[in-house]
Amino acid sequence: MTNTQVTHIQIDNYGPWTVTPEPRREVDLQTLQSRLYADLAQLFGNRDGYIFFSRFDNMIAVTNGLDEADHALIQESVGNRYPVTMSLSVATGTTPVSALGTATEQLQAAGSAQDDGRREVLRGQTIDEQFRTDTDVQLAHFDVDDATGKYTDQLNEFDTFIQIEQGYAALMKYMREAYDSLSFFVGGDNVIAVCPDLDEAEYRDACDHVREAVDVELKVGVGRGRTPADAGMDAKHALEECRADGVTVRFE
Amino acid sequence: MTNTQVTHIQIDNYGPWTVTPEPRREVDLQTLQSRLYADLAQLFGNRDGYIFFSRFDNMIAVTNGLDEADHALIQESVGNRYPVTMSLSVATGTTPVSALGTATEQLQAAGSAQDDGRREVLRGQTIDEQFRTDTDVQLAHFDVDDATGKYTDQLNEFDTFIQIEQGYAALMKYMREAYDSLSFFVGGDNVIAVCPDLDEAEYRDACDHVREAVDVELKVGVGRGRTPADAGMDAKHALEECRADGVTVRFE
Amino acid sequence: MTNTQVTHIQIDNYGPWTVTPEPRREVDLQTLQSRLYADLAQLFGNRDGYIFFSRFDNMIAVTNGLDEADHALIQESVGNRYPVTMSLSVATGTTPVSALGTATEQLQAAGSAQDDGRREVLRGQTIDEQFRTDTDVQLAHFDVDDATGKYTDQLNEFDTFIQIEQGYAALMKYMREAYDSLSFFVGGDNVIAVCPDLDEAEYRDACDHVREAVDVELKVGVGRGRTPADAGMDAKHALEECRADGVTVRFE
Amino acid sequence: MTNTQVTHIQIDNYGPWTVTPEPRREVDLQTLQSRLYADLAQLFGNRDGYIFFSRFDNMIAVTNGLDEADHALIQESVGNRYPVTMSLSVATGTTPVSALGTATEQLQAAGSAQDDGRREVLRGQTIDEQFRTDTDVQLAHFDVDDATGKYTDQLNEFDTFIQIEQGYAALMKYMREAYDSLSFFVGGDNVIAVCPDLDEAEYRDACDHVREAVDVELKVGVGRGRTPADAGMDAKHALEECRADGVTVRFE
Repeated sequence: MTNTQVTHIQIDNYGPWTVTPEPRREVDLQTLQSRLYADLAQLFGNRDGYIFFSRFDNMIAVTNGLDEADHALIQESVGNRYPVTMSLSVATGTTPVSALGTATEQLQAAGSAQDDGRREVLRGQTIDEQFRTDTDVQLAHFDVDDATGKYTDQLNEFDTFIQIEQGYAALMKYMREAYDSLSFFVGGDNVIAVCPDLDEAEYRDACDHVREAVDVELKVGVGRGRTPADAGMDAKHALEECRADGVTVRFE
Repeated sequence: MTNTQVTHIQIDNYGPWTVTPEPRREVDLQTLQSRLYADLAQLFGNRDGYIFFSRFDNMIAVTNGLDEADHALIQESVGNRYPVTMSLSVATGTTPVSALGTATEQLQAAGSAQDDGRREVLRGQTIDEQFRTDTDVQLAHFDVDDATGKYTDQLNEFDTFIQIEQGYAALMKYMREAYDSLSFFVGGDNVIAVCPDLDEAEYRDACDHVREAVDVELKVGVGRGRTPADAGMDAKHALEECRADGVTVRFE
Repeated sequence: MTNTQVTHIQIDNYGPWTVTPEPRREVDLQTLQSRLYADLAQLFGNRDGYIFFSRFDNMIAVTNGLDEADHALIQESVGNRYPVTMSLSVATGTTPVSALGTATEQLQAAGSAQDDGRREVLRGQTIDEQFRTDTDVQLAHFDVDDATGKYTDQLNEFDTFIQIEQGYAALMKYMREAYDSLSFFVGGDNVIAVCPDLDEAEYRDACDHVREAVDVELKVGVGRGRTPADAGMDAKHALEECRADGVTVRFE
Repeated sequence: MTNTQVTHIQIDNYGPWTVTPEPRREVDLQTLQSRLYADLAQLFGNRDGYIFFSRFDNMIAVTNGLDEADHALIQESVGNRYPVTMSLSVATGTTPVSALGTATEQLQAAGSAQDDGRREVLRGQTIDEQFRTDTDVQLAHFDVDDATGKYTDQLNEFDTFIQIEQGYAALMKYMREAYDSLSFFVGGDNVIAVCPDLDEAEYRDACDHVREAVDVELKVGVGRGRTPADAGMDAKHALEECRADGVTVRFE
């Protein structure tokens, strides 16, 4: 059994801010968004959490090991250094999707994403230290088989990107619908999925699905841990073993 | 006629670097990638260019107005401040896809993306000042109709993300295949497309295609200019008019 | 009694790097240095430590509460994201100067600051949890009395800066020689000093010295704590009380 | 004759902001300040200007080659990405001090640094392109002779810092009073001075003064140019020649 703690991060009233009093320069928005994400990667990551950029104005983090005080400090630190504020909602569940579902509901109950009066909400409950176990988090690190040889060194960069993107779109939808998992593109040809307690056959099935749907070949390393950092590093090592041994799925 | 100048940016030998001597912590890779992108957004953007993160290890920029010296300085500045280096290749064409095709080919001719000996390549030709015109660049700024009301405030954040992502996957593939355009997700529910000289019917067709394929409703503002910054800001203003007037396509 | 834990941070072989193969652009060096400092401010600060930029290529941190694993992770994170590496040496002592003395000696014993072969040294011992107390750290936050009214709004900015700088130069030398304290300019008209167990008369004496030496009027709030973050926040509150009550020295 | 264009940058109402509603965490203030400086280093530096952090809440830039539109864009970009805004005032003069004097006066005339209603002021005039010459800017790059051998590898880091700091305090005051120059510590053992048309004997005199006053040995390379970037890079090369040839002053 996994026990994933998921945090939904939402920039408060961001859409309206980007066009008030008139549209702000895209270069500044891109810089703001990617630096905020980088800062959150450090703030969560240095506490052994993982955060994914997803839509940038809404981000999703796996936060086993972070308590409410950690969340409050991260919220305050961003409020001190950015022209925007953010709301955070945290929840747990036996699957990542159910945890996120609760987290998002708590946030929606506090007001709309574009409610001008809803600022710096902090909701939800973290896992008490006594209930944490070494298998609370399962992360899977996918990559595309020989992406450099098949795509990057052969096609124009956008056509390569189409392959990666179509593979990701197929995977993220299937993993959510079939396996209650949250899958995120993290750059290059890499996808990290936050999963419940899936087994080798299920990962193999997901890879098969993507190959059949969009003709993209994946392999995947899987790690488990008390924290996302532990699970994620194990998944990376398992993926290296896939590469070395030519197998499709490997558990660390 | 458009005359798009496109630059393909590739981090040199990045894949192997991320796992040598053993896998580096994901939080640091994410921080590195998103900060590099933010820096390039500033470096290109302050010269009126636009850059898109696409895969982060390979990025695509529209660079009308930047010459070779600008590219060289950007390359040097990154080399001075990051543990990795990057190669740049620039080309022009009547469509964005043909420009990128040339740019990528020049880079591939210089060596593989994972060739340890290929470092800081700088290839290609920029448009001479005398040949530049006020309609060289056409940018289209799409967003999803009422994404906050339909998705963000209703579904869990990942299911919202699935809608946005499936919409993007359909749009980017169709715009490339039907219209030789390069479309990039830029956060929230926004996509910016770099286009040849398309007309209103063609943009309407693209929106129709996405609605039929994945049931996501788009609207789009279109701008033209001598530089990406000009075209992009016009596109934003046109999109604001779509919002105000309830129309699907608007040219500034 | 205080028990200050001090870390000396030194960029490895930085001087030669800045001019190899020829001098690097100053703008890039300034960006690199100030961002490295900002990152370390977050990395140490999110663990309740304080770091001061001092010379940028050599920095000094107060690190009560951080253990060796924290230091190792900070070193690794910088190594993963910058073109330079850094060495760290940590020590404790009854005065900040004696702690730093030990830290620097450990680093010097490992090789010269410009020794090309000395990379990512990590030396020294942190305080065992069982020996930590709530008065281990004493921080004093000085500012210049009515700097805006007397200087910023009256003189040209450089002449204002001269006043602040001469005040700092006098204070940092006196506090080191008379009181074994480490004083750092932190921007505006603010100086933070890391002190042994000084009393009100001693702080008053330091302010008197600066007024007599360079005619700059200071006030100071003093905080004590188990961590630099606690002591520093108390010092800020005490300084606010100085402002409100018109007194020169206040202990929280 | 030099014709230095100087910009005074002031964060609006910063002091009160740092303690409202109560003192903000020092780590966040330090991060904010140093990143703002890094961003300005890029924004000015990529237009061939130089900026110095001086007090962080007030900064001084040499901006020959930047016009008013450049200043406005830099101001807007910061306003889009930071929780604080900044005012800019630019002026020229035959000496750097007289240029800065005018710039500061224009800013003071617009309101106090702590006037809550004074936001994003932009004042002053830049040099018309037709009046610019290749000797408009004179920059001098000082460093301390064998600082690593004499200090860094011998003393504890704070005692090294005292030597560098006392040398800087003596130099910056003397250069301002005797030679109308603006001198800034830029890290390590380096000081960059913005000067009028000084000759070798005058630089030698400044080095003599510092040696006699505080027993710190300096050498200095001097560059001239149309822009700060040109003058500054020439000064670095000249300083390298000082190092190679063992001389105290060298003009490129």
